[in-house]
Amino acid sequence: MRKVLVLNGPNLNRLGTRETEVYGSDTLDDIAAMLHERAGPLEVELDVRQSNHEGHLIDWLHEAADTGVHAVLLNAGGLTHTSVALRDAISAIAVPVIEVHLSNPAARESFRRRSLISGVCKGIISGFGAHGYALALDAAARL
Amino acid sequence: MRKVLVLNGPNLNRLGTRETEVYGSDTLDDIAAMLHERAGPLEVELDVRQSNHEGHLIDWLHEAADTGVHAVLLNAGGLTHTSVALRDAISAIAVPVIEVHLSNPAARESFRRRSLISGVCKGIISGFGAHGYALALDAAARL
Amino acid sequence: MRKVLVLNGPNLNRLGTRETEVYGSDTLDDIAAMLHERAGPLEVELDVRQSNHEGHLIDWLHEAADTGVHAVLLNAGGLTHTSVALRDAISAIAVPVIEVHLSNPAARESFRRRSLISGVCKGIISGFGAHGYALALDAAARL
Amino acid sequence: MRKVLVLNGPNLNRLGTRETEVYGSDTLDDIAAMLHERAGPLEVELDVRQSNHEGHLIDWLHEAADTGVHAVLLNAGGLTHTSVALRDAISAIAVPVIEVHLSNPAARESFRRRSLISGVCKGIISGFGAHGYALALDAAARL
Amino acid sequence: MRKVLVLNGPNLNRLGTRETEVYGSDTLDDIAAMLHERAGPLEVELDVRQSNHEGHLIDWLHEAADTGVHAVLLNAGGLTHTSVALRDAISAIAVPVIEVHLSNPAARESFRRRSLISGVCKGIISGFGAHGYALALDAAARL
Amino acid sequence: MRKVLVLNGPNLNRLGTRETEVYGSDTLDDIAAMLHERAGPLEVELDVRQSNHEGHLIDWLHEAADTGVHAVLLNAGGLTHTSVALRDAISAIAVPVIEVHLSNPAARESFRRRSLISGVCKGIISGFGAHGYALALDAAARL
Amino acid sequence: MRKVLVLNGPNLNRLGTRETEVYGSDTLDDIAAMLHERAGPLEVELDVRQSNHEGHLIDWLHEAADTGVHAVLLNAGGLTHTSVALRDAISAIAVPVIEVHLSNPAARESFRRRSLISGVCKGIISGFGAHGYALALDAAARL
Amino acid sequence: MRKVLVLNGPNLNRLGTRETEVYGSDTLDDIAAMLHERAGPLEVELDVRQSNHEGHLIDWLHEAADTGVHAVLLNAGGLTHTSVALRDAISAIAVPVIEVHLSNPAARESFRRRSLISGVCKGIISGFGAHGYALALDAAARL
Amino acid sequence: MRKVLVLNGPNLNRLGTRETEVYGSDTLDDIAAMLHERAGPLEVELDVRQSNHEGHLIDWLHEAADTGVHAVLLNAGGLTHTSVALRDAISAIAVPVIEVHLSNPAARESFRRRSLISGVCKGIISGFGAHGYALALDAAARL
Amino acid sequence: MRKVLVLNGPNLNRLGTRETEVYGSDTLDDIAAMLHERAGPLEVELDVRQSNHEGHLIDWLHEAADTGVHAVLLNAGGLTHTSVALRDAISAIAVPVIEVHLSNPAARESFRRRSLISGVCKGIISGFGAHGYALALDAAARL
Amino acid sequence: MRKVLVLNGPNLNRLGTRETEVYGSDTLDDIAAMLHERAGPLEVELDVRQSNHEGHLIDWLHEAADTGVHAVLLNAGGLTHTSVALRDAISAIAVPVIEVHLSNPAARESFRRRSLISGVCKGIISGFGAHGYALALDAAARL
Amino acid sequence: MRKVLVLNGPNLNRLGTRETEVYGSDTLDDIAAMLHERAGPLEVELDVRQSNHEGHLIDWLHEAADTGVHAVLLNAGGLTHTSVALRDAISAIAVPVIEVHLSNPAARESFRRRSLISGVCKGIISGFGAHGYALALDAAARL
Repeated sequence: MRKVLVLNGPNLNRLGTRETEVYGSDTLDDIAAMLHERAGPLEVELDVRQSNHEGHLIDWLHEAADTGVHAVLLNAGGLTHTSVALRDAISAIAVPVIEVHLSNPAARESFRRRSLISGVCKGIISGFGAHGYALALDAAARL
Repeated sequence: MRKVLVLNGPNLNRLGTRETEVYGSDTLDDIAAMLHERAGPLEVELDVRQSNHEGHLIDWLHEAADTGVHAVLLNAGGLTHTSVALRDAISAIAVPVIEVHLSNPAARESFRRRSLISGVCKGIISGFGAHGYALALDAAARL
Repeated sequence: MRKVLVLNGPNLNRLGTRETEVYGSDTLDDIAAMLHERAGPLEVELDVRQSNHEGHLIDWLHEAADTGVHAVLLNAGGLTHTSVALRDAISAIAVPVIEVHLSNPAARESFRRRSLISGVCKGIISGFGAHGYALALDAAARL
Repeated sequence: MRKVLVLNGPNLNRLGTRETEVYGSDTLDDIAAMLHERAGPLEVELDVRQSNHEGHLIDWLHEAADTGVHAVLLNAGGLTHTSVALRDAISAIAVPVIEVHLSNPAARESFRRRSLISGVCKGIISGFGAHGYALALDAAARL
Repeated sequence: MRKVLVLNGPNLNRLGTRETEVYGSDTLDDIAAMLHERAGPLEVELDVRQSNHEGHLIDWLHEAADTGVHAVLLNAGGLTHTSVALRDAISAIAVPVIEVHLSNPAARESFRRRSLISGVCKGIISGFGAHGYALALDAAARL
Repeated sequence: MRKVLVLNGPNLNRLGTRETEVYGSDTLDDIAAMLHERAGPLEVELDVRQSNHEGHLIDWLHEAADTGVHAVLLNAGGLTHTSVALRDAISAIAVPVIEVHLSNPAARESFRRRSLISGVCKGIISGFGAHGYALALDAAARL
Repeated sequence: MRKVLVLNGPNLNRLGTRETEVYGSDTLDDIAAMLHERAGPLEVELDVRQSNHEGHLIDWLHEAADTGVHAVLLNAGGLTHTSVALRDAISAIAVPVIEVHLSNPAARESFRRRSLISGVCKGIISGFGAHGYALALDAAARL
Repeated sequence: MRKVLVLNGPNLNRLGTRETEVYGSDTLDDIAAMLHERAGPLEVELDVRQSNHEGHLIDWLHEAADTGVHAVLLNAGGLTHTSVALRDAISAIAVPVIEVHLSNPAARESFRRRSLISGVCKGIISGFGAHGYALALDAAARL
Repeated sequence: MRKVLVLNGPNLNRLGTRETEVYGSDTLDDIAAMLHERAGPLEVELDVRQSNHEGHLIDWLHEAADTGVHAVLLNAGGLTHTSVALRDAISAIAVPVIEVHLSNPAARESFRRRSLISGVCKGIISGFGAHGYALALDAAARL
Repeated sequence: MRKVLVLNGPNLNRLGTRETEVYGSDTLDDIAAMLHERAGPLEVELDVRQSNHEGHLIDWLHEAADTGVHAVLLNAGGLTHTSVALRDAISAIAVPVIEVHLSNPAARESFRRRSLISGVCKGIISGFGAHGYALALDAAARL
Repeated sequence: MRKVLVLNGPNLNRLGTRETEVYGSDTLDDIAAMLHERAGPLEVELDVRQSNHEGHLIDWLHEAADTGVHAVLLNAGGLTHTSVALRDAISAIAVPVIEVHLSNPAARESFRRRSLISGVCKGIISGFGAHGYALALDAAARL
Repeated sequence: MRKVLVLNGPNLNRLGTRETEVYGSDTLDDIAAMLHERAGPLEVELDVRQSNHEGHLIDWLHEAADTGVHAVLLNAGGLTHTSVALRDAISAIAVPVIEVHLSNPAARESFRRRSLISGVCKGIISGFGAHGYALALDAAARL
């Protein structure tokens, strides 16, 4: 079975508890459960993780390369807009990475218009709330 | 049955004939056929159109509002980056619009980094080639 | 009798149906009727048109020059902020053009702060809703 | 009778004496006389003032709020482009303010493209010379 | 007893009457009364002034230097963002100046992000409403 | 015989009637006649068109690719500075496109300094008035 | 008793050992001691922490929300100017956060002029050295 | 005898008391005395004034035009960099104005690099301390 | 016979030896020979020069004015983008100057987008390789 | 013996496995071995570390100060371009830091042009691949 | 006798022959003669030079330092706006340099607003035509 | 023996005589002597040159290509930041060029942050004073 790693960056552990008008009411556990349900029929094994540390996300991206992961879904949270190191980590591995956002950054503050990682990701899905993860998993399964 | 309008802007009639390294080898007819196949199970009626005229795209968005369309998938091509009028047309209708791009604009010229329409779209999907339309249709069906 | 052409750009055919908090509840037909009522006492013959196509607006500006129109009232909608071609059309004719906006662009998104056409128009009136057309007609009649 | 305050900022006391190709040959007294003539039929009482001091204009805007003025016509001259304090004064009162310019700033130096006050004014009228005040008075009377 | 001058710039005489969601419901007199109460225990003599004229604020800063004032609390209002002359006045005196803002400028319009005077002030306190003056007085008393 | 398409964008139908100090006194028909005269000796068949619609220019560029045109001379008028869609149309065809301008945009308004299409054209000729078309035809014949 | 969390970001563990002309000679322990002394009379329980890891600061902000902390004092050090993730963490909790700086960033390098977190903090205090923490504690106690 | 007006803006009344390393140790009275000494041989009558109010400087420029002043020497202090109103006042009079600065603004903060008034002044002299006024008087006498 | 001066700036002596994919395989001598062949029928006398020194190009432009040269063809190489002095030299002479580039700068690095000299040249030809010189000679002969 | 600390930031643990056209084929272990070989003759004791966590790099820089390290060689990877905290850490210690890059950032993406840390480093060496570390060690030994 | 070197940069050898509305009708020889006449009474020995080569100006500035020149008057022409090397040459010598411009650069193209050399010159005089050199000589004699 | 050319640009002939706090006290002759000493063991023949003329540096780079030089060390001085022509010269030759700076430009004025030549050099060494040349020679010897 192909393995898909779902990496979530800073603050995504707070999903469902606040700013629900922006991010929706699903918790990260809800999203993980929904994804696991869909993973079976797609013959994909999932591993969902979250960290508030840039360094852990980079470590995990490296690990994905070393353990033959099929694809990574990455919601890098606020690091999306500021981390060249994360971008470099994506470039440094051959595993395709799909960028996911719950909200639509283009409809928010101007500093969210720039994604440092989009340019090295396979594709981007944003604005569909939790369902965006499902779309990304579908996309990952087809790669 | 719910109707979904798939609008394609300038130059998308040339799909599959050139710059295939950027846009893939599917023609717009191939994409339409693929979408029609998926539309049935989703109980969606499709209408796929293309024009090189900004004005036609605006007319069609208005028509979508007047004819009770459920959702619009919009690949505005180069107009994505330059047309306030198109943005206003999306704002002027209640129908949700999903922005689709075959390629990943973030990995191309800097003038493609800015989308004037993203801020008023429901969600954005880019970088997955023709399959992006399928993901968008899936998203539209769930709205 | 002097002829005044009232040209309306993209999306102005949607007036009165949506975003009424921004643009007011008058339809374009309501505005045309109000203007026609005022035109008589001013000894002005009116011709009110709308198109979502930049090209038609340019064609009509040229036609204004060829048919001896006294003045043009122009609400170019979203093209105000993006169209050098429309600006060139105004420069290319001797007929004075008055720029009209229903809303106050200065109180909206930053990309609406720049008007490409203001610099070649006779004058600008914005923020007074439908009444702005009446003010512009008064100004046109005095030219 | 409703009272309308007409406030003129720096250098407008020099109208009619120099740069007449930009600002026209009417003096501020000529404009005041023309406005007084129009004010009667509109059942409006006028008060026309001028100062080269930003502070006075702010004082007068506050006074307008305290004395129940119906509307203010404001030609802030060069302060239009530089005064956040004036903008704050307009925000700080409930009286609607109409921005007037004799010339068309969009056709002049680039530092005149930005108005700090437009965003908090009811509407803007520019480019019609002295007649712009008359149009603004008409607009004020309808508020 | 040490003397502390509290200078308030344009529009702060309107405190408590409008935009109370931004600036709070205290009037400038309320703030002065609250400060006078705190000044005693700190062995500080207070002098609270307000003007809408940049020139008066500069005059008063000079006066502070000439009369041996211990410190100045300065809420320069909109001049904060535009006045090099005020900055120069602060540089031109040896008396330490503390910048105070009722609201948090960083959470407002982008032109409020830049303070021309912060760089030559001793310290800055913003976002605490009327209580910010009390904090500043405390800071001043310790200088 | 090789076919060369000469495409003219917005407002070029007004050539010779106004702003002759910028664009010269030749009409578009004069230019077409001059070009036809030169085309014979170069063994080139000409087709000169004009439209104020961006969409038509894009349609014609596509048609050029489908009908085996040897080269396109393109004076895109004001669209030169604003149309990503036109740029994409040029990229989307294998036919070489030569950009022509009657005036020298570098000597005009700053927004004319940027050409969105130059980067994908074979070459650029500007500032020589109607004779620029002749030079471009010469260049096209040698490709 | 209400709990106040005092979070210190990168390099603040070096306080008092170098660049004392910028940051003063107090160590972080000195500041903690001074704050503890003041906390008693204010009926506040203090918890002072420091980390050079952005992730820890985010973890602690989340913890503050989960443990019912009354307010957070945050000196984010260099992360102030670069971390969207930290900003998002502040937005993601209901606990009010007060931004504190020892030095006056406005008087230093230009990249210190922009604070990414100010816009979502309750208030900001800068330039008063160690005493700024005391002022912030006073402000926190009054919230 | 020809009259020359010497206008000094904000903070120049503080000359000689502080920041002497930037502005020198001469007071404004010293400079006036030195100028009066030189004015005689040049057959020039001098009038030296200072104000911290932008409005007074504008009033005085207007007065210069009304009283037949031969030339104005203007050291506008911090208003140099921020006042469009002052620029407009210079444009509004026919009297030539010479801009003088004691220090060399190009060697100071970046916001001093831009002079809003230089573009409408006859000439500029900066960096020579008090002697710059003497040079400007010499220049004025030759106009 | 009319004289045409062909001036070549820095590095054009290296033509044909390197970066031939950008500049073509013709040497400067090849281009000179080709131009001399064409000059005869046009009744033009040619003088082709090259220097890596900005000063020499300026000297030669002055010499062109003093010796009655009919027109100058100028390929200023890298100085195109950086030299105000060269621009001033073109302005300082009455001889028309035609700017030539072998490659299409618009398709290269962003710092090549700005030409400091285009605004004062008669016309510009770029992107046609060595043939661009022939087109420019043709244009020069018609002036 | 003097101790030199060699700190490597995010992704440098991936050296030699991917993007070898940019970073070369040496692994970090290869580089460490090469450096150890050179350290002996220079009488330098080496300590080579790597982390993907900004916080660890900051901790290690502090440790360098506390343990009397002679110099630090720092390849901060992507943090070079984004981390004010790292810059502050370098400023916060007296140990000289030498910035090293394997590739030449000036020849890569524009966001790599800006180094936030260069301004506080002793010197910079870039573009020489693994050999750059050797040069930096040589430089460190001479400090 | 003190020696003053008067250095003139590119194109100043063309003075008096063209663009006389900008630079006046005096030739450089006229200016030199006028200066020599004034130099005697000031007990100054003059040496007036001109070159179109940046390198010569730098050589001469070095020579000024080596030969004990009292001061340099420098009109660097177009190099004023582009030459860091010239700036460095001024910094590299202890001789004071006075920047002179015949015209007022602030009233011309925007690229003339920036002087790279002003920041390291003693003072600047511009806009007085040839007389500006006389003023500068007077200033130099007093140094 | 391999030949290495050491090219020094404007003002480097002044080394050791002024601004020694920035550039150190070694003269260019001192540096040349130090390099010659090191060149022997590296089996490299050195040729050290200096010019204040951009054109000479370009000539010498061309000469390096024609005479089979192994590598060039280039300290372009102020031209580093302004010369596209020098950049083109480096691109125009196959000889590798190493950029050297005595000081650390990143710690100086903002206009020194941009190097126009770095992007086409093999590597960059800055901030190590005269020893930087030795490091560069070592790097060159290993190419």
